[in-house]
Amino acid sequence: MTDWLDKIKWTEEGLLPAIAQDAQTGDVMMMAWMSAESLALTVETGFAVYWSRSRQALWKKGESSGNLQKIHSMHLDCDGDALLLKIDQIGGIACHTGRRSCFYRILEDDQWIAKSDILKDPSEMYKK
Amino acid sequence: MTDWLDKIKWTEEGLLPAIAQDAQTGDVMMMAWMSAESLALTVETGFAVYWSRSRQALWKKGESSGNLQKIHSMHLDCDGDALLLKIDQIGGIACHTGRRSCFYRILEDDQWIAKSDILKDPSEMYKK
Repeated sequence: MTDWLDKIKWTEEGLLPAIAQDAQTGDVMMMAWMSAESLALTVETGFAVYWSRSRQALWKKGESSGNLQKIHSMHLDCDGDALLLKIDQIGGIACHTGRRSCFYRILEDDQWIAKSDILKDPSEMYKK
Repeated sequence: MTDWLDKIKWTEEGLLPAIAQDAQTGDVMMMAWMSAESLALTVETGFAVYWSRSRQALWKKGESSGNLQKIHSMHLDCDGDALLLKIDQIGGIACHTGRRSCFYRILEDDQWIAKSDILKDPSEMYKK
């Protein structure tokens, strides 16, 4: 049943980089890490579950903000060491700053310039 | 001049995961790693230069196959630890297997199924 997990080449810490891409628009929303457990939970639940390296804990994306990522399809690369998730981004916001995508800074004239609007105030997103 | 490099949070090995996305179609082509030197070379030359972890060497993407990646724009994420490159994929092929994208295996019924056509025989791509 878990043969598909054995095809994956994990890092030394047992992690796999996972890219979340909006299945409709093609926007790359974020990159995060998955453990075998978080990946299995992702498949089982149909929603993205990552491994938070800072908190060293399972992290169901959107569990605080409500901005869950519904899995559309999962794509493994040729080397088996990177994963692409095509997702439906609930709420339309992936970034904890309230922007749509985490990749909102663009390199221009040797500077990273924030180019995307803040769609929702983070204090609104994370209030209990 | 290199302030923009200082914004990046490198891994312990001094690397940064970089996602290459076709600037026109939105297809995610591959994920690879960059060192500070390879990233600086990418900006300087306008073509993607990665760091090959297996060869422990600079790796100008397409230097053997001709399938260079011309940089369209570069996007840093909120945490400064992942990079998105929007690129023009010369030759239309990013994967060493001769497929368009490296993410050609899709999870279906607990199996990774290769879904993309081989556009060019690898032995053709890499012959000298």
